[in-house]
Amino acid sequence: MPALDELETPAILVDIDVVEGNVARMAEACRRDGVRLRPHAKTHKSLAIGRLQMAAGAAGLTVAKVGEAEVFAAGGVEDLFVAYPVVGADKGRRLLALAEGIRLAVGADSVEGAATLAGVFRAAGRTLDVLLEIDVGLGRTGVAPAQALDAARAIGSLPGLRLRGIFTHAGHVYVTADGGARTAIGRSEGEVMAAVAEGLRAGGVEVEEVSVGSTPTVPRSRAVAGITEVRPGCYVFHDATQVNLGSCTLDECALTVLATVVSVPARGRAVIDAGSKTLSKDPLAPAGGGFGRIVGRASRLETLTEEHGVIRVAEGEAFRVGERVRVLPNHCCAVVNLHDELVGVRAGRVEERLRVDARGRVQ
Amino acid sequence: MPALDELETPAILVDIDVVEGNVARMAEACRRDGVRLRPHAKTHKSLAIGRLQMAAGAAGLTVAKVGEAEVFAAGGVEDLFVAYPVVGADKGRRLLALAEGIRLAVGADSVEGAATLAGVFRAAGRTLDVLLEIDVGLGRTGVAPAQALDAARAIGSLPGLRLRGIFTHAGHVYVTADGGARTAIGRSEGEVMAAVAEGLRAGGVEVEEVSVGSTPTVPRSRAVAGITEVRPGCYVFHDATQVNLGSCTLDECALTVLATVVSVPARGRAVIDAGSKTLSKDPLAPAGGGFGRIVGRASRLETLTEEHGVIRVAEGEAFRVGERVRVLPNHCCAVVNLHDELVGVRAGRVEERLRVDARGRVQ
Repeated sequence: MPALDELETPAILVDIDVVEGNVARMAEACRRDGVRLRPHAKTHKSLAIGRLQMAAGAAGLTVAKVGEAEVFAAGGVEDLFVAYPVVGADKGRRLLALAEGIRLAVGADSVEGAATLAGVFRAAGRTLDVLLEIDVGLGRTGVAPAQALDAARAIGSLPGLRLRGIFTHAGHVYVTADGGARTAIGRSEGEVMAAVAEGLRAGGVEVEEVSVGSTPTVPRSRAVAGITEVRPGCYVFHDATQVNLGSCTLDECALTVLATVVSVPARGRAVIDAGSKTLSKDPLAPAGGGFGRIVGRASRLETLTEEHGVIRVAEGEAFRVGERVRVLPNHCCAVVNLHDELVGVRAGRVEERLRVDARGRVQ
Repeated sequence: MPALDELETPAILVDIDVVEGNVARMAEACRRDGVRLRPHAKTHKSLAIGRLQMAAGAAGLTVAKVGEAEVFAAGGVEDLFVAYPVVGADKGRRLLALAEGIRLAVGADSVEGAATLAGVFRAAGRTLDVLLEIDVGLGRTGVAPAQALDAARAIGSLPGLRLRGIFTHAGHVYVTADGGARTAIGRSEGEVMAAVAEGLRAGGVEVEEVSVGSTPTVPRSRAVAGITEVRPGCYVFHDATQVNLGSCTLDECALTVLATVVSVPARGRAVIDAGSKTLSKDPLAPAGGGFGRIVGRASRLETLTEEHGVIRVAEGEAFRVGERVRVLPNHCCAVVNLHDELVGVRAGRVEERLRVDARGRVQ
């Protein structure tokens, strides 16, 4: 393995000690609160890190795409939830093949969508577990709580499907939260979901799983009675947005981008060899500008083009051509998704190459 | 090959007839204006499309990274320009290996940066061609026109380097242009660069190449006396931003994203299976909101999360779960960079799979 300062740039560094600490702390907190932990693997898309999460006691993994599920199933993960309203007989056939080997569930939020999968499973004499998606305020997919009973009955009665429970993602925390407020959404996702589950049971619908999660909301949601499972993703690496939201400290951030200053063309401006094709254009949430923090500096990445990151140099700081910097990105999931490989570092030494096994599996 | 309606979604469709038309028209216009065409391959990162451009008469290709140069050189392209201020002896050694087999040049905008490459080439008894980068207003990399003579003399005098000429990228056209104005930057990049070249020659510096370009500025710049080479990238596919800028018509857009409506959870909202990991978060430039146009509809993609594209449904339109739509993305280069494969379509039929050969070659 090369020394850290021999790595070519840009390189995506992952501090393995920090990852192990993040994984262990989340697993321990979930055990303490008596909820299952099903980390969202979209953050790392890496078999090695998924196995680390499983070894720490995760009940299974969450993915967003059938293609991601195929990668993790082939890699030995035996319990997967595709937290997405999967639609289409083509996807249904792939799910049918997957369900041969593992415990599998997928999301659903409409009879029309769920029916496309039900048909495939019914024709094969098999049953697919589904979780009804509830919209607790994000305004993306999912049925409103008031429509949950009708939707659960309709989807749960489709031959070929079994309603395992309900799930949600309170992603609006990334818009509404103010810095430092860990779970600053009005009524927490956990409280809303526990109430929805009770309403379904009162209506005669069996609800085995009540699954919630996002890194900022999990600390509060996992302690709510009735929540059975949480699905944080970013916690494994964290990023500038999680720091901004108060989900973590800077010391708990595992992923940085090693970059080289390639140009200092004018006073107050320096340019690194990491642009939007390395860092993504994801903004700092819930507020604040720039495209990443320069570790140990006050200077910020002000603009990105595809291969250039333009630093607005803070008063009293300076950069020189050839110097290396580390960038804490706004959104770790978006960065990982741009790369085939991460560099595992421990105590400042390069330890391993980590493949982003499920990158590009968009279907 | 599957039929178009049998493709799994999301899929990145490329209309080959439109690509061939775009490639032929640009090549013909450059021949007419007497400038060399060196398309920027960062848009497609595909050997097949690069070869198409070469066959149409391109003098060579432009790339942004040494890794991209390695892919195109291995694929048979014998004249490459890395339009980037490459820095570092590690990159220098790879350039040295590359220069064994092809005609090669790289960008430079500082003596400190260029010296890191010069040292490698000098030690090997070889010479690397460099083009000095001039900043014509973007405010990214490059020296100001007033500093060009000093910088050219300093860089050109480094043993191991030969100054082939100057280059620029007037990327501020994406910020300053109003819709319909093809080249709405004050003094055109061509005019500024021709003047810089004359100034260098008056100062005793030989300038063989004066290279400019971007899809919106090329129509004006290629006709300016003294410009020897243009480097448009997006023109091969075009996108919603190029339509917005007046660089092309909708009929000249070759790349669309085929997606499935997976949820219609509320009145006025529909969700497709293409989010920022498929479409990128690149904004519509120079102005206008949303993350892509739904082909044939007035409805727009209003927000993206990683795997969800949320459509604000226009008055009088409707979407149903399972329906397929095509999205014209804001920025074709950013979309291609997220995928391993494009689907080549001709006259509505799937014709070939196009590998994005240089994707992920960030170093």
